[in-house]
Amino acid sequence: MVRSFVQDVEELKALLAVARGDAPAETVLRGGKLVNVLSGEGYPAEIALFRGRIAGVSLVAGTYSGETEVDLAGEYITPGFIDGHMHIESSLVVPPEFSNAVLPHGTTSVVTDPHEIANVHGIEGIRFMLASSEGLPLRVFVMLSSCVPATDMETSGARLSADDLAGLLSESRVLGMAEMMNYPGVVLGLDDMVRKAVMGHQSGVRMDGHSPLLSGQALQAYASAGIASDHESVSASEALEKLRAGLHVLIREGSTARNLDALLPVVNERTSRFCSFATDDKQPNDLARDGHIDHCVRRAIVGGVDPVTAIQMATINTARHFGLDDLGAIAPGYLADMVTFADLREPRISRTFSSGKLVAENGQVVSRSEVSVAAPRNLMHAANLRLESFAIRCEGKLARAIGVLPDQIVTRSEVVEVSQDGGYVVSDTQRDILKIAVIERHKGTGNVGLGLVKGFGLRAGAVASSIAHDSHNLVVIGVSDAEMLLAAQTVIGMGGGICAVRGGEVLGQLPLPVAGLMSDQPWESVRDAMQRLLEAAHDLGCPLDNPYMAMAFLALPVIPELKLTDLGLVDVTAFQLCPLFV
Amino acid sequence: MVRSFVQDVEELKALLAVARGDAPAETVLRGGKLVNVLSGEGYPAEIALFRGRIAGVSLVAGTYSGETEVDLAGEYITPGFIDGHMHIESSLVVPPEFSNAVLPHGTTSVVTDPHEIANVHGIEGIRFMLASSEGLPLRVFVMLSSCVPATDMETSGARLSADDLAGLLSESRVLGMAEMMNYPGVVLGLDDMVRKAVMGHQSGVRMDGHSPLLSGQALQAYASAGIASDHESVSASEALEKLRAGLHVLIREGSTARNLDALLPVVNERTSRFCSFATDDKQPNDLARDGHIDHCVRRAIVGGVDPVTAIQMATINTARHFGLDDLGAIAPGYLADMVTFADLREPRISRTFSSGKLVAENGQVVSRSEVSVAAPRNLMHAANLRLESFAIRCEGKLARAIGVLPDQIVTRSEVVEVSQDGGYVVSDTQRDILKIAVIERHKGTGNVGLGLVKGFGLRAGAVASSIAHDSHNLVVIGVSDAEMLLAAQTVIGMGGGICAVRGGEVLGQLPLPVAGLMSDQPWESVRDAMQRLLEAAHDLGCPLDNPYMAMAFLALPVIPELKLTDLGLVDVTAFQLCPLFV
Repeated sequence: MVRSFVQDVEELKALLAVARGDAPAETVLRGGKLVNVLSGEGYPAEIALFRGRIAGVSLVAGTYSGETEVDLAGEYITPGFIDGHMHIESSLVVPPEFSNAVLPHGTTSVVTDPHEIANVHGIEGIRFMLASSEGLPLRVFVMLSSCVPATDMETSGARLSADDLAGLLSESRVLGMAEMMNYPGVVLGLDDMVRKAVMGHQSGVRMDGHSPLLSGQALQAYASAGIASDHESVSASEALEKLRAGLHVLIREGSTARNLDALLPVVNERTSRFCSFATDDKQPNDLARDGHIDHCVRRAIVGGVDPVTAIQMATINTARHFGLDDLGAIAPGYLADMVTFADLREPRISRTFSSGKLVAENGQVVSRSEVSVAAPRNLMHAANLRLESFAIRCEGKLARAIGVLPDQIVTRSEVVEVSQDGGYVVSDTQRDILKIAVIERHKGTGNVGLGLVKGFGLRAGAVASSIAHDSHNLVVIGVSDAEMLLAAQTVIGMGGGICAVRGGEVLGQLPLPVAGLMSDQPWESVRDAMQRLLEAAHDLGCPLDNPYMAMAFLALPVIPELKLTDLGLVDVTAFQLCPLFV
Repeated sequence: MVRSFVQDVEELKALLAVARGDAPAETVLRGGKLVNVLSGEGYPAEIALFRGRIAGVSLVAGTYSGETEVDLAGEYITPGFIDGHMHIESSLVVPPEFSNAVLPHGTTSVVTDPHEIANVHGIEGIRFMLASSEGLPLRVFVMLSSCVPATDMETSGARLSADDLAGLLSESRVLGMAEMMNYPGVVLGLDDMVRKAVMGHQSGVRMDGHSPLLSGQALQAYASAGIASDHESVSASEALEKLRAGLHVLIREGSTARNLDALLPVVNERTSRFCSFATDDKQPNDLARDGHIDHCVRRAIVGGVDPVTAIQMATINTARHFGLDDLGAIAPGYLADMVTFADLREPRISRTFSSGKLVAENGQVVSRSEVSVAAPRNLMHAANLRLESFAIRCEGKLARAIGVLPDQIVTRSEVVEVSQDGGYVVSDTQRDILKIAVIERHKGTGNVGLGLVKGFGLRAGAVASSIAHDSHNLVVIGVSDAEMLLAAQTVIGMGGGICAVRGGEVLGQLPLPVAGLMSDQPWESVRDAMQRLLEAAHDLGCPLDNPYMAMAFLALPVIPELKLTDLGLVDVTAFQLCPLFV
């Protein structure tokens, strides 16, 4: 259950005394231009802070006095930014390091779905994300991963029923049920999905959606289950249909899926209140280069959205959608999460305040949050891999291939002529057809799903990763079985991670010992290792912006059209496993 | 706790089947123009209904089929209207009759504060309002009366602490804490008020405000307590300051307080989402003549508000403010509360649907709700009144008089020269200075507060009422002590009610046996009796639009400037009792 405003009698009395001017504030921020997202105005104002909250705001300079006074020197001051839907795991670092990475960009709250670690470690994984985000200057709200595993067509490390999740609904930072990814299951009224929806409604919590390209009566059915949002729209017409059906539109601009430009036409003075920003998945190098929600705000303004409206979409709209009643505005009693910047037309964050404290300034955190909570023990149960594990016996001339689309997590289902050698299918770099494997790593089943991918572009070597949505088995793409084996063994040897190899050489590697998904090292070193890995993949010929993230989504069987799991190829449109050869 | 959407697994499966088109709807509404308050658009659409909810909406005619099909013949269809703050007691009828009165006006939900009956019967009174509104076609949501009594400067029938109220917070239709009327107590941090605020926050419920003319640091303090709304603004600048401070602006247009025209300037494309309509107090004759929230919508449109915006203020804005997630829009999964009308520029309700059923058509309810729940036993403990009870011994030449302002519940504190006869103050009809008495009726204390009122206008006779906000003692205004005594005794004899007398004759009377506040008779007969009472008061010379309602507010010591309780005159600005003579 979400609680808001002051929860303690003496604490509220003390706040009231400051607000009415009978006691000094801890800090008074003077000389700033307040962007008031409640009235849609900007005006000079001073802001009195007390014990993490805003005690009072005054248009009359000198109304409040404080023990500390800060001069904002004419900069704008707005509420801190909120990411409405994301998976911290995609940053490749644990919550304290993620906090260090995004605070300088003005993000003060995120609504995260610990779906990735939940697929590896189940409830223990969700509890780790709660524990390791406790007390951070970044507020981390959690939606309970509703689809673990996402489908029955893969092997995950855990399986979470409505009953398993019920015990977490009363946690103070748990806001509800995360994206109901099994949207065909919801539409068809499958028992597990319906039970989870009903459990959410009985608990009075919010329920997020995930319904790519869903339309017409299927969308009406999905919305009728009381699902409150969607972040999968890729066109304005898709977003408008969802908005009409009552789904809050989370405009996604992440590392792989970048929908902001396409969706801006849906934002107008009547609809903007039902729109927010989200990143879904954002890697540390992209965070460092582009920013986070501040990037969405700037992009929206460039795209023609009024700056105050864009800031509302990054603040109050998201807070209200999730029932975070004392977040997202600068008003009395609200949590004092705020950012400052000089230019309203191009907000570049100069200071970030969390609970009234300066936590980042000029691109740097003031004090670094430390990693202190031990992660669940992660084991890569994928031993006994051999060259033969990657062998595809040729059973026909034509086979399905996963067609990769740049900057998209949807794929095309293609049919290609296979290249073979001695009765076995081989990668064909001339036609950009590569072998892909998904190796079960949680339970030691020995399952290996094998297939072909087109558009990935490797001309040599192999890449491998223990990040492979959503079951996070071990995914490998390579030109030869030997290189695929080396890449897979390298990841297993690190206890999870990402690597690129050529011949017998490991070109780059990033250990991700936390669930095979996250590093416990400083985010900057992860960013640098990732940068080296990207360069290695590009050197090997891959033309994609982020080959590892693209590869990770090739295993996600809830996004059309063709995907690969440890159980084999999945025809997502038909929502069933399908053979490689046609 | 508020719950929303479908709470039952089999029920949701059945709804999903209808939504996706695999099972027929119960009813399909065709040929209407949907006003979609989520996208801010109007367009032709058909609406499929199933078991009280909207299963699906389609722009393509013929998508859905139903057991019953209704042709809306080109009329507009919008969500049912919601009154964001009101006291059902002011309608003078119990909830089933109130439902009968407002459904034809398109009101399908009200958020009521049973503050009046709570002041008479305490928790038992609140439980009566919950029980007697159970299962009505009108949805009655309850906010828990937070200030019973409103102040310590009066004698009420009950006293409710935070602990007393706590047990009601889990009731399914209880949304939170009602208007925190003791706003000086909140601002000053008085223990009882702070405890109630904290209890509300700990329970995660909404808390309504009541802060007439509050401004500057006092307003900042009031808002910092986490109070979420206000319905007392009388000017656009007052409303804007409150909106900036985070208070949702409930624009009130009731029987006595009519603030809509004055507040419309605050409504614009950026602020309208934080504005809603409310009536606060509306009597049956006004309901019959003007309408209810439909009246607010029409007035707002006449005042220049875009019709879709005005409808949003009557529907989705209010629903979202109170966390009623499946109310206030026509979208899948939402409760099928809807209205139709022919003219978007002047909505006059032709049909009202509640939970998908036609409940009113062309100004008439389809099926009358019956009064069935027994009210708490009401006793008028005000025996032993004598002529001397009304005597004011003259103790000076100048005295305070309550200055009545037409159409306002605020009064002016005036100083007048008293008229006397034999050492006693008497009413002076020449100068329009009348005697007023407030007689304690709950506990038989014998308390009688006496004072003077200016601007009430009686030239003969007396009027009396057991409705006297908020303690609902017996209030009497008259030209002579004998007529005041007769009026008071007439009300006592009815077990509560309203009357007008002249000489020894009772000109009109309306028994209100339920707590001395409400009738259990059909609302039309109450309206007619009230009409006769109004004519009687006007015949006696009172120029006020509604003398009884105006009189009832003269006893309310939380509205400035000068009021009278059974304990005596109250200087509301100083928030203390004050002597009659100066």
